[in-house]
Amino acid sequence: MKFYARQIAEVLNGHVDGNPDAEVTTLSKIEEGKPGSISFLANKAYTNYIYDTRADIVVVNEDFVPEKPIHTTLIRVKDAYSAFTALLEMYQQAKAQQPGISENASIAETATLGKNVYIGDFVVIGAHTSIGDNCRIYAHTVVGANCSVGEHTTLFAGVNIYDESVIGSRCILHAGVVVGSDGFGFAPQDDKTYKKIPQIGNVIIEDDVEIGANTTLDRATLGSTIIRKGVKLDNLIQIAHNVEIGENTVIAAQSGISGSTKIGKNCVIAGQVGIVGHLKIVDGTTITAQSGVTKSPKKPGMMIGGSPAFDHIDFQKSSVHFKRLNELVNRVNQLERQLKSMEEQE
Amino acid sequence: MKFYARQIAEVLNGHVDGNPDAEVTTLSKIEEGKPGSISFLANKAYTNYIYDTRADIVVVNEDFVPEKPIHTTLIRVKDAYSAFTALLEMYQQAKAQQPGISENASIAETATLGKNVYIGDFVVIGAHTSIGDNCRIYAHTVVGANCSVGEHTTLFAGVNIYDESVIGSRCILHAGVVVGSDGFGFAPQDDKTYKKIPQIGNVIIEDDVEIGANTTLDRATLGSTIIRKGVKLDNLIQIAHNVEIGENTVIAAQSGISGSTKIGKNCVIAGQVGIVGHLKIVDGTTITAQSGVTKSPKKPGMMIGGSPAFDHIDFQKSSVHFKRLNELVNRVNQLERQLKSMEEQE
Amino acid sequence: MKFYARQIAEVLNGHVDGNPDAEVTTLSKIEEGKPGSISFLANKAYTNYIYDTRADIVVVNEDFVPEKPIHTTLIRVKDAYSAFTALLEMYQQAKAQQPGISENASIAETATLGKNVYIGDFVVIGAHTSIGDNCRIYAHTVVGANCSVGEHTTLFAGVNIYDESVIGSRCILHAGVVVGSDGFGFAPQDDKTYKKIPQIGNVIIEDDVEIGANTTLDRATLGSTIIRKGVKLDNLIQIAHNVEIGENTVIAAQSGISGSTKIGKNCVIAGQVGIVGHLKIVDGTTITAQSGVTKSPKKPGMMIGGSPAFDHIDFQKSSVHFKRLNELVNRVNQLERQLKSMEEQE
Repeated sequence: MKFYARQIAEVLNGHVDGNPDAEVTTLSKIEEGKPGSISFLANKAYTNYIYDTRADIVVVNEDFVPEKPIHTTLIRVKDAYSAFTALLEMYQQAKAQQPGISENASIAETATLGKNVYIGDFVVIGAHTSIGDNCRIYAHTVVGANCSVGEHTTLFAGVNIYDESVIGSRCILHAGVVVGSDGFGFAPQDDKTYKKIPQIGNVIIEDDVEIGANTTLDRATLGSTIIRKGVKLDNLIQIAHNVEIGENTVIAAQSGISGSTKIGKNCVIAGQVGIVGHLKIVDGTTITAQSGVTKSPKKPGMMIGGSPAFDHIDFQKSSVHFKRLNELVNRVNQLERQLKSMEEQE
Repeated sequence: MKFYARQIAEVLNGHVDGNPDAEVTTLSKIEEGKPGSISFLANKAYTNYIYDTRADIVVVNEDFVPEKPIHTTLIRVKDAYSAFTALLEMYQQAKAQQPGISENASIAETATLGKNVYIGDFVVIGAHTSIGDNCRIYAHTVVGANCSVGEHTTLFAGVNIYDESVIGSRCILHAGVVVGSDGFGFAPQDDKTYKKIPQIGNVIIEDDVEIGANTTLDRATLGSTIIRKGVKLDNLIQIAHNVEIGENTVIAAQSGISGSTKIGKNCVIAGQVGIVGHLKIVDGTTITAQSGVTKSPKKPGMMIGGSPAFDHIDFQKSSVHFKRLNELVNRVNQLERQLKSMEEQE
Repeated sequence: MKFYARQIAEVLNGHVDGNPDAEVTTLSKIEEGKPGSISFLANKAYTNYIYDTRADIVVVNEDFVPEKPIHTTLIRVKDAYSAFTALLEMYQQAKAQQPGISENASIAETATLGKNVYIGDFVVIGAHTSIGDNCRIYAHTVVGANCSVGEHTTLFAGVNIYDESVIGSRCILHAGVVVGSDGFGFAPQDDKTYKKIPQIGNVIIEDDVEIGANTTLDRATLGSTIIRKGVKLDNLIQIAHNVEIGENTVIAAQSGISGSTKIGKNCVIAGQVGIVGHLKIVDGTTITAQSGVTKSPKKPGMMIGGSPAFDHIDFQKSSVHFKRLNELVNRVNQLERQLKSMEEQE
């Protein structure tokens, strides 16, 4: 796909300052601007890059005044950052997989497919499962029996969805995601073996959820593991059985939520966090990376850190002192010596 | 599947208190009881839910005496918890995949399949591999060459098993599990590159082992990585080359065991634990979440925590003091000031 | 495959001390030596095993002098360790998958395959993708559109590679690796929802890189996530968008590198480490297990540890004191009591 400066200016409602026939095929960052690409300048800290960039077009704010000669074509717009984001979206949409159903897919007779879907090679769709309009299901993904997938949802390659899962509309599940594996539940027996507790619940993923590569979500023992509307999960996250994640909560990579814990709305959970089971985390909680959460903060909107986690500011103070613990011990040694010598003098 | 109260009572050796024709299709928790479901009450803390539950049938202990009017049908049995667990198992078994071999599977001519197996779409079974009776291998799973899988073992969708792996009977491997990938072994060279050390051992998984979604088990450099009878591994766990996990040890999600470490029997390892290489962890050790284990406790049956890990009780005490480290530093500051002023007075 | 002592001695440029017709089919460690296997003795600490080993052949240094009778056949060579490593490599090569293209693979018409490649069952290769000579792509692996894979690269089963990825020569990607999933980038909106930031960059993996099972590498938002020549990544690692890992850096299992962080050359990063975003880690840094890195050491070649991480020696000292924090608090309590009583006496 090739685009000219004048075309792009028209789409962005801007005007060309330079060569209207400058042509580009991709997008780039201004500090890495490659020939054949369009870039943008919105943050003043990056202004210096514009004088040397090899990008053929740069989108700038309309009031941008160069301080040196410029060798690239500019497109001046009201808000360079928003304009560039719009370009990114257009570019991504232009590249999206076109509808069509692979002859190599295995689709159960009782499954129903919506309009305009893409079903890739070797996809498996189970009995009584429904796939909504405009869904894209990439190669090798397995959707079990009795599942439903909403509209405009994308399942990338190699996603494994167990029976009875429910997935909303406009969701994106990345490669290797597992939905609905058994919860980790075993009853200890007298002979020290463990007996499996049947896991007959399911997983419900509401609308507008994105789930990163190789993340795993266990089905509930009974009832449902629930991921609410707008939740964003990064890669390699573990969601145990009967967990519930509230609306618009985001969780970064490699965090793990133990069984039956309920996380509130609008929480921000950083990477490699662990949360123990059967907790209720209040709305708006922020949890810093690598924390180990054993109880919820009492009020919404707090930030906690550490393992075990407590107030983040206190954790930072304690961490600073921890670094100098050797010095503190030496000071206590010194105090004891002084005191001993004072007592001996008396 | 539809069941009536009188049928269920007969199976559970209980009796109906209410409508013998009450009908249900699924099971639920009493606090989430849905119409059309059967639930149970065993824990007195949940008694209040029985008066409002929308479950159509509730299994209770035979001596249960309601304190308010009840709108649901009861089935009275000797032990409500055991009875309900039995129901769960029956329900799960009724839903299990029926035997049959997909036409889309790719099975090597020299592979042997037992009786009564289920082989799903696009399954690959390599040369000289044997699959025992009553195994269920779901869509897209790959079992390499020269492997053996025992009887009644379930491999869910998208499991990848490398050549020469040995898997026992009555095992369950969840979606995305990798068995037999190369151990992480490299010899540093003078030019700062690393040279791969060939990994020609294998993985042996004994009977009654369950392995969670996307967990990875590396083959041994030489010899075998061994998962003993009855071990239960949760999701996203890393088992390095030449590790051995003792009988009936359970490990929670996202923990990692480094190369050549041997873990004893009946250990309980919580989530996100890391254990360094070449250790021997004694039998019956409990390790709390997010611990970093650098040496084994000396005696069996101890609990350790922290990173690096030590006695759990001591770790808890230290953690409490860590929270208040700022206060401790202030107290030492104050002591120094007092002492200084006392010395100046002299 | 069966080999005789005299054949092996010839290949290793050594000589047989014992039965030249001793035959073996596999390799083993001397302490686990099985009948039908060849083992080696290089480390003196293992000398005792040679007198009882059941291995039929043992490779030893030419100057080895037994102190007791030996029941196995020896092959004497200049350097037993190197000789055995050579055997391991020969064994692994002999077992490698032979070239050939499965009829069950789905290869786009516009894709190009080099000479001598192996393409397993149900492999998917997208449009305009090129696969170099001597590559081996195992069952179920998906290589998207517009990708390139160099020569002599192995992709094990179930690898998922998104469009536009670039993979070098002599790389090994293990089962379940995901390359090119979207970076975790979302713009918070006023209504507390998040809007996806399109991720239109790619992933570039240079030559001689090995990547462990179920590790995930996100594509760049713009530009490229880059894994430099000779990097070795273990299992279940998370590499976020726009990360760059320098030449010959090794990272152990379950570590995670956040967005836009650049890691230098020749670093050694242990397991379960987390590194925050937008850092530059200097060359030759060593990071101990479970560390949480929030800033780079100032000089190359340092070792850091802890969460948050600092100088490793200081971390070790602080950790020792942390264990005894309760004792330290008691000592401060005691000092306060003493001081108070001294003041009261005055």
